[in-house]
Amino acid sequence: MNQTDQLAVLKKPLPESLAAVLSLIFADRFSMTQAMRAHHGRDESSYPPMLPDAVIFAHSTEEVAAAVKLCSAHDVPVIAYGSGTSLEGHVLALHGGVTIDLSQMNQMVAVHAEDLTATVQAGVTRKQLNEEIRDTGLFFPIDPGANASLGGMAATRASGTNAVRYGTMRENVLALTVVTADGRIIKTGTRAKKSSAGYDLTRLFVGSEGTLGIITEVTVKLYPLPEAISAAVCSFPGTGEAVSAVIQTIQMGIPVARVEFLDENGVKAINAYDKMALPEKPLLLFEFHGTPASVAEQAQLVQAITAEHGASDFEWASRPEDRSRLWAARHNAYFALLQMRPGSRAISTDCCVPISRLAECILATKADCEAQGLVYAIIGHVGDGNFHVQMLVDPDDPADIARAEKVNSDMVTRAIGMDGTCTGEHGVGMHKMAFLVEEHGVGAIDTMRAVKHALDPKNLMNPGKIVRW
Amino acid sequence: MNQTDQLAVLKKPLPESLAAVLSLIFADRFSMTQAMRAHHGRDESSYPPMLPDAVIFAHSTEEVAAAVKLCSAHDVPVIAYGSGTSLEGHVLALHGGVTIDLSQMNQMVAVHAEDLTATVQAGVTRKQLNEEIRDTGLFFPIDPGANASLGGMAATRASGTNAVRYGTMRENVLALTVVTADGRIIKTGTRAKKSSAGYDLTRLFVGSEGTLGIITEVTVKLYPLPEAISAAVCSFPGTGEAVSAVIQTIQMGIPVARVEFLDENGVKAINAYDKMALPEKPLLLFEFHGTPASVAEQAQLVQAITAEHGASDFEWASRPEDRSRLWAARHNAYFALLQMRPGSRAISTDCCVPISRLAECILATKADCEAQGLVYAIIGHVGDGNFHVQMLVDPDDPADIARAEKVNSDMVTRAIGMDGTCTGEHGVGMHKMAFLVEEHGVGAIDTMRAVKHALDPKNLMNPGKIVRW
Repeated sequence: MNQTDQLAVLKKPLPESLAAVLSLIFADRFSMTQAMRAHHGRDESSYPPMLPDAVIFAHSTEEVAAAVKLCSAHDVPVIAYGSGTSLEGHVLALHGGVTIDLSQMNQMVAVHAEDLTATVQAGVTRKQLNEEIRDTGLFFPIDPGANASLGGMAATRASGTNAVRYGTMRENVLALTVVTADGRIIKTGTRAKKSSAGYDLTRLFVGSEGTLGIITEVTVKLYPLPEAISAAVCSFPGTGEAVSAVIQTIQMGIPVARVEFLDENGVKAINAYDKMALPEKPLLLFEFHGTPASVAEQAQLVQAITAEHGASDFEWASRPEDRSRLWAARHNAYFALLQMRPGSRAISTDCCVPISRLAECILATKADCEAQGLVYAIIGHVGDGNFHVQMLVDPDDPADIARAEKVNSDMVTRAIGMDGTCTGEHGVGMHKMAFLVEEHGVGAIDTMRAVKHALDPKNLMNPGKIVRW
Repeated sequence: MNQTDQLAVLKKPLPESLAAVLSLIFADRFSMTQAMRAHHGRDESSYPPMLPDAVIFAHSTEEVAAAVKLCSAHDVPVIAYGSGTSLEGHVLALHGGVTIDLSQMNQMVAVHAEDLTATVQAGVTRKQLNEEIRDTGLFFPIDPGANASLGGMAATRASGTNAVRYGTMRENVLALTVVTADGRIIKTGTRAKKSSAGYDLTRLFVGSEGTLGIITEVTVKLYPLPEAISAAVCSFPGTGEAVSAVIQTIQMGIPVARVEFLDENGVKAINAYDKMALPEKPLLLFEFHGTPASVAEQAQLVQAITAEHGASDFEWASRPEDRSRLWAARHNAYFALLQMRPGSRAISTDCCVPISRLAECILATKADCEAQGLVYAIIGHVGDGNFHVQMLVDPDDPADIARAEKVNSDMVTRAIGMDGTCTGEHGVGMHKMAFLVEEHGVGAIDTMRAVKHALDPKNLMNPGKIVRW
């Protein structure tokens, strides 16, 4: 964290005139209290807190624009904050400044069920969205686990369990409202399903982590609720067998809606946390969506493939309550694992590789974790070639942290060597910046930097993230 | 075309020193002959030819980079050219300069069947790609009609008949090799299916029409050939009924692989051109992909929906040869229509709207065509809310052209008013530039321009397209 200490020196105090005018505009939605700043100065990453100088709660795109304009006039950094569930230090106020909390911008703007689209304010969470559209027979599939805000999900290009079938935020955001670095309000995209009308600003802001502008509204695709859903779990003698079964499923083009991998450590953790009795072996958790006939057909094919790879204990969960219990356990895996080493903090990382290399990549990473003697679990959205390593470290033990970071670094280098990526869905934040150059090369990083300089010439939008200035 | 005349004045002759060195490097792959320049100075649009000063045929990314560097050093524009099938003036040398023809860069770089990906040089056409991977059991679905090059398809964000099921180039390009305006070679993206690793440069270059850099290699997703395919045609009493059937099909989430609309003029044209005997009424052409059971199920659902909307003459085409004949006829529609008015040239345009507004948009546009007394057809990838209007004009009659442009302009305004886009898949080129501001607003266009200025500071990459300098 030496870098952080050095950068802290560069922090300037918030100009009093700016604080005064923000306080005037936002009244009790402006705060400089230690508690409020501390709450916004951390996320789910293992970084130490880095506090903004002030926090405001915006209620409209216009308010965000006004705040950005004022901060820009004072050369003060601006950080967008959704639900605080990011994992790589995205929202930490490395250079101080003003955090704009968008969580109270939680209004539905429009639901066009007949077009399978919804437009929401950035603070609407994925669970809220699905609740709001419950009567339409539609749903929004992107599910990164945490109940993240749509703005944050767009900003980090989130995905999760359903991405293997429905894609990520990259594929599911149709349009955005964005406040640019100069405080202008722009709209990117339309509700048309496809377009060749100019540069793809929507995709440029998706995944830009607040460094190019602040997303204030998001238009997403919705999908008809499948007529039939079924889920199944099965266990494997080893990680290699489980992952090989997934590889074959994907290569055959079976349109599974979800296929999640948990290694034996992950299974143990959720057994303990959720009082389940799953066999403590590598496990796959499938979900199938479609008509009753197509779901039955997919499940039959998958059962045959998993059997070929030594699967046992194949169990159906066709009742909604059984499915919910299984998925809740899967979603709790992060918290479940934390209980395996009380007082620890998780260093969480992810990568994504071409599907044929997945078994090799997971096995090598697992061996590294074992060699380092870590308490860890590997859990993956394996249908996409994407997996997570969660390592529990003593936050006060630098050697422990170094062991975990070594596993992370080796995993990323391995994934990049396989023509994969240093992060499939967590994003760059501060944690993966060093690896971006390794993945993309100097020329591509220079191109990203040119875009950053062009759209944020004063380096005030979430500075210190994604690309170095 | 006054604008063109004015801009022609700004053209500078090609510096002799540049011609000399390009000639030295490219030898007989460098040409300044009138015939070669004329061949590269037009596309399938109705614009008058605008000739480059010279043409080179590149054989490698490194050659493209060398040429771009040399042209940049001489402040000479560079235009990438694939198969010349663009429709909106994309490749016209508005400011002169050097056209880099990539059609001889037609090598397969790598096929990773086990990962469902292929990497090709930019000049590989979609038909060639499918030929090359025939033995893998995989296919590349994006089919814009013309046998376009993959580089050109990426550069225009092409899509076509299969997009309703498989997405467009936006969703199907994983990675690119790009020569930037300063002649550097960069790689965007990896073969990982998803990534949150920084700004989405891949999506930024996809659809940038050669204005930000030149795409020299493309990595795309492949798909397992469906186990079963079937196709069906049916006719409707009117356009409204046909489109309403499509709307309901999409709203129900039936995963049709293709659903094409032809109005009665389109049907008449292909009947005459392809010696078919289709009922000369609005027609839908469906294709279903999947397992035998799921294809049967989809077809049954669609047949019920179309019957509800008054469809008649529902006919199956399950034999490959019958399907091929139907799709060949559909693909020939453009040329078939040209025969309906000998000596004419087509003004071709497209737009895309949210699916619920599609019938209204098509009917109003059809009424405009009738009111203007045009020879025309409306043909659409209607599952995406995307349709084309092809209007035959006498290229020597300004009044005729003005009538067609009025229909185009009104259609675009209508589509934008419906929260749609001025082009679903043709791209901007020169023809849709004026409408971009209407669609995106000044702020978003300024953002696009900032990106252009950042990545092409001398305005040498296909200048005069997409955004005004």
